[in-house]
Amino acid sequence: MREQTIRTAIVGASGYTGAELLRLVANHPNIELVAATGDSMAGRRVGDLYPSLHTAYPDLVFTEFDADALSGLDLVFLGLPHAASMELAPQIVGEVGCVVDLSAAYRLSDASHYPTFYGFEHTQPELLAEAVFGLPELHRDLLTGARLVATPGCHVTAATLALRPLVEAGLVENTGVIVNNVTGITGAGRTPTETNVFTNIDSNVVAYGLLHHRHTPEIEQEVGAQVLFTPHLVPMSRGILATCYATPAADCSAERLVGAMRTFYDGEPFVSVLDGPPATKSVLGSNAAHVWATLDERTGRVITMCSIDNLTKGASGGALQAANVALGLDETAGLTMVGVAP
Amino acid sequence: MREQTIRTAIVGASGYTGAELLRLVANHPNIELVAATGDSMAGRRVGDLYPSLHTAYPDLVFTEFDADALSGLDLVFLGLPHAASMELAPQIVGEVGCVVDLSAAYRLSDASHYPTFYGFEHTQPELLAEAVFGLPELHRDLLTGARLVATPGCHVTAATLALRPLVEAGLVENTGVIVNNVTGITGAGRTPTETNVFTNIDSNVVAYGLLHHRHTPEIEQEVGAQVLFTPHLVPMSRGILATCYATPAADCSAERLVGAMRTFYDGEPFVSVLDGPPATKSVLGSNAAHVWATLDERTGRVITMCSIDNLTKGASGGALQAANVALGLDETAGLTMVGVAP
Amino acid sequence: MREQTIRTAIVGASGYTGAELLRLVANHPNIELVAATGDSMAGRRVGDLYPSLHTAYPDLVFTEFDADALSGLDLVFLGLPHAASMELAPQIVGEVGCVVDLSAAYRLSDASHYPTFYGFEHTQPELLAEAVFGLPELHRDLLTGARLVATPGCHVTAATLALRPLVEAGLVENTGVIVNNVTGITGAGRTPTETNVFTNIDSNVVAYGLLHHRHTPEIEQEVGAQVLFTPHLVPMSRGILATCYATPAADCSAERLVGAMRTFYDGEPFVSVLDGPPATKSVLGSNAAHVWATLDERTGRVITMCSIDNLTKGASGGALQAANVALGLDETAGLTMVGVAP
Amino acid sequence: MREQTIRTAIVGASGYTGAELLRLVANHPNIELVAATGDSMAGRRVGDLYPSLHTAYPDLVFTEFDADALSGLDLVFLGLPHAASMELAPQIVGEVGCVVDLSAAYRLSDASHYPTFYGFEHTQPELLAEAVFGLPELHRDLLTGARLVATPGCHVTAATLALRPLVEAGLVENTGVIVNNVTGITGAGRTPTETNVFTNIDSNVVAYGLLHHRHTPEIEQEVGAQVLFTPHLVPMSRGILATCYATPAADCSAERLVGAMRTFYDGEPFVSVLDGPPATKSVLGSNAAHVWATLDERTGRVITMCSIDNLTKGASGGALQAANVALGLDETAGLTMVGVAP
Repeated sequence: MREQTIRTAIVGASGYTGAELLRLVANHPNIELVAATGDSMAGRRVGDLYPSLHTAYPDLVFTEFDADALSGLDLVFLGLPHAASMELAPQIVGEVGCVVDLSAAYRLSDASHYPTFYGFEHTQPELLAEAVFGLPELHRDLLTGARLVATPGCHVTAATLALRPLVEAGLVENTGVIVNNVTGITGAGRTPTETNVFTNIDSNVVAYGLLHHRHTPEIEQEVGAQVLFTPHLVPMSRGILATCYATPAADCSAERLVGAMRTFYDGEPFVSVLDGPPATKSVLGSNAAHVWATLDERTGRVITMCSIDNLTKGASGGALQAANVALGLDETAGLTMVGVAP
Repeated sequence: MREQTIRTAIVGASGYTGAELLRLVANHPNIELVAATGDSMAGRRVGDLYPSLHTAYPDLVFTEFDADALSGLDLVFLGLPHAASMELAPQIVGEVGCVVDLSAAYRLSDASHYPTFYGFEHTQPELLAEAVFGLPELHRDLLTGARLVATPGCHVTAATLALRPLVEAGLVENTGVIVNNVTGITGAGRTPTETNVFTNIDSNVVAYGLLHHRHTPEIEQEVGAQVLFTPHLVPMSRGILATCYATPAADCSAERLVGAMRTFYDGEPFVSVLDGPPATKSVLGSNAAHVWATLDERTGRVITMCSIDNLTKGASGGALQAANVALGLDETAGLTMVGVAP
Repeated sequence: MREQTIRTAIVGASGYTGAELLRLVANHPNIELVAATGDSMAGRRVGDLYPSLHTAYPDLVFTEFDADALSGLDLVFLGLPHAASMELAPQIVGEVGCVVDLSAAYRLSDASHYPTFYGFEHTQPELLAEAVFGLPELHRDLLTGARLVATPGCHVTAATLALRPLVEAGLVENTGVIVNNVTGITGAGRTPTETNVFTNIDSNVVAYGLLHHRHTPEIEQEVGAQVLFTPHLVPMSRGILATCYATPAADCSAERLVGAMRTFYDGEPFVSVLDGPPATKSVLGSNAAHVWATLDERTGRVITMCSIDNLTKGASGGALQAANVALGLDETAGLTMVGVAP
Repeated sequence: MREQTIRTAIVGASGYTGAELLRLVANHPNIELVAATGDSMAGRRVGDLYPSLHTAYPDLVFTEFDADALSGLDLVFLGLPHAASMELAPQIVGEVGCVVDLSAAYRLSDASHYPTFYGFEHTQPELLAEAVFGLPELHRDLLTGARLVATPGCHVTAATLALRPLVEAGLVENTGVIVNNVTGITGAGRTPTETNVFTNIDSNVVAYGLLHHRHTPEIEQEVGAQVLFTPHLVPMSRGILATCYATPAADCSAERLVGAMRTFYDGEPFVSVLDGPPATKSVLGSNAAHVWATLDERTGRVITMCSIDNLTKGASGGALQAANVALGLDETAGLTMVGVAP
């Protein structure tokens, strides 16, 4: 592990994932933040837009994006719209130590999904091929030294951590998987809409993005199985619980399911295999993931679950964890905060 | 429809379903409430325990249970523990016009489920055979004139309304059904526990009662299919959303699914077939049920959903609706209130 | 009480107060709704914008405003912006039985407050003088037969019901009054903003509109005292709790405070004087107001409180109650629903 | 600042303040936790009772209290009932480096308040005289080297931080002060009761402990003024907002109020003087306090506000901050986490 200063910029820092990165890097022992850009908020103090960041960043001001200023930095996070990220990346990859993209621009190895799910053609096939999917629990080796990291979607992290160990161990079939998620509203972003107003979330649960949610191909890619994905909004700001159903393979048992999880996550700093169903509040504000699985022998169905904080492990925390791996730092640096409960 | 006065008692009125019945019968044009018993609260004013009932019942006091006082009444609701209800029912059925039991004591036609799911042997097989399952949308004819009505469990109402029309129309297979529900905490009752304290529900989602929840055999009985049932607690007081997955039969299509629902619920006063996913807040405080279904052709899976208020349509409202049918009253009497939103 | 049909229109029905009126008039025995206008929503089904209204109004569609169509109606509610209401009223007052304005356009008897607090000159001094302040508990006699009713602001209803009986009885001084309110977010209206997004309300409390909130002159007018008013947003959709502090007059005592309240509200259908602090959930979804007062002898301060649902008693319910009085109907018609709790 | 290892025990660690201490000390660079006692939970894993602590303390088990095991430790936190703390303290003060008591046992310099507000006579007058009130912003010098620290009550910290600078600067009178607080439910503790069940807190606001709340004499002691204190429960887990009203002294102005605050808190690591009303969510999960004050010239009243997280700055975070000062450590050690928002 190198003792070093990581000169870092956050591009598109004024959204929720940007604010979450700011929360985390404030306690990172190596990171020196040199810029937080946010064109629409340029000139505004970070602590005025996010008063929770006031104490940590009393003087930090959002600046306008300036590509030249990034050159030579050790680490650049991109918190931009998907297409903007796709276009910016080739300008800075190689010019900086590591680019960690929080958009979906470099997540899908099959470029043909982009027109279908994101509405644009992918114009950077080489960079797409180079990008490493930023889930250290699956791709730690590839991440080490990576120049471009694609941070997973929040639902993808939850579903993959619940399902991948079981698929890989051959304990469940790779068709007929159902991923039934609930999530807090922060995943919908900062812009006020009819969806994220308080009155629409309070005392309310509703499914959204049915059949064709953008995270579907990403989950299928990482899990290695065909998946029907149904997310629901529930009345909370943060948190995802993935409740997944799969068909057991021949030698499946409840013990083997949990055993496969324990083997897969042995030594992982952030994933805990529980003895029962995980809860979202247990990981609120932390980079932890709680997983558990069981088998219903009567109906012949595996249930596997994962809870994360969608903004932390599901976005900015996962991004920082991947950055730590990419740069050869302590993987937990800046991520040791404990979840806020009760 | 008869213009008449229905002399009514609520036995076990101090719990949440009792309070909800009191809320509803306050606006019933025919019901005259003659007693609200609640042994542990006897002597206490209803409006002191439930200040929301203060205006409607300024002077009503919970009384101790007295079987003799029930004799000759037109309608008796039982809001008692399951075993207590099982034992009390034979004493009053036939002595009063109609007994509507909100417990599970007379819901399961297969008595062998009682030791497994409720921990007691059912000692009243004849009454169990006579009891009518109180879901008017399925059993309206049987309910008319019934002496004993068994009010469905809250999750059962939601799951059955989502699934039954599709099973009955032969559009889905009757095995491999998954019922993935979310619910507010009122279903857990009034007694303070580590489960229903605010800090355990706020910002939290967790599954409970996995594999062996008591509502499983009841759902299977009413839906007519084998079901894996997984309920989750979410941060709200009221509401259930059932998200159900089933295997499509040969001729299934999204249009036929919705068509089967529209046919099944044609003329129903409380069930609306929406054009998209239902939300729990849309039915909060009302007796409405919102349903919708679709087909994912890619993965070969039907999704069907239902939202209800667990205390209203899912318990006391459904009980009152069934009582109206049993007694030949307007089925909507006392149930015309509109949901409270936003 | 006349048995009659009240032909009614709601102008500006697509906002929250319009939706709440629609919820209530659906159960009014006399009201026949002939139009619900909402220019920005014209052509859209009411039940699509507000699914909670789907069952009660399966076919109702928002229409464009048409002044001619109002002529001859018995009752017209105005749910428009303040200045628009001010301008529309003279066109329809006298042409219809009763106009009930939910804006502030005709609330303030001192027209000089309008430029200061609302940013426009009041151009209708005669109509302003004629308008009756729509709080039946204070102005029932004037309301009877009124052609133009000005519905109170939500905070005003709460503060006035807490304070007026004590001021009128001479038990508190008419200077130095503090009104410290908390409120749910529905008072901020339907349009999504940075204020009413879920993430800004969840787990958050903040004061707003300090020193110069628009409801200040209105509270002072109705209470008859100088008032410092400080509202706070708390994490809920509906409800106001007014906690008011006043200086006791010479003969004040806790008993006399409660006694003055009981006298003032004797026979009132919607106001209950409790034996302790009122709660907002006890009146959720109902037209009830719960009040209580006490004296702290040690510090020489009266505390008086009132809880209401800001959309019901604090807006549309209060408006309907005032309309009932104005038109000589049963004052409780359409308002007998019980609060939704737990 | 000494680089050292602080051997530490938490006595009564299973309650909410104990769990919050565990959350914080997990990131303290100097603290080595040697015991977490909790008699009723003895033998139970910390991570089972508080899953949020699972990752930080995979193997830690609550143990039974053993006074001998404390001897020679550097730091002992007491999270016990008031009377138990009063009795235990004399056994360990002097035997360990510093005792930080989270109960009220050693907060009130006037022992005569204990029978009135806590129901017991104080039997340790000498230790009561020695104990230092653990608010570094007021008593930093006394805290350095203190053997016994009394952690302030949560409402006391909020009210004192809002009011003390203004009283000390002579800008407000020291009579007629009103402290109107709202708070999340965690302050009520872990035991399930009719007060802290979800249904009683959700969508609800109610005042409690009126006129005689136990924090009243403590606020008066620290603020140096006569205070009427009225707390309210609002629907959230954590957070206090103190909204205080005071009478301005002769030379008071809005500018001088804010100026006095800026002077008083100059250099303070955790207190920020904002430019407008503080919000509770801005400090959620952090040790920050946000304050602001203004003057209403029209009614002649000062408004001063403070927001804190009641479990962090208002209890365990404040306790750790005081311990850091007492032991000569970096005052911010273990307390650098940033608030969790949005």
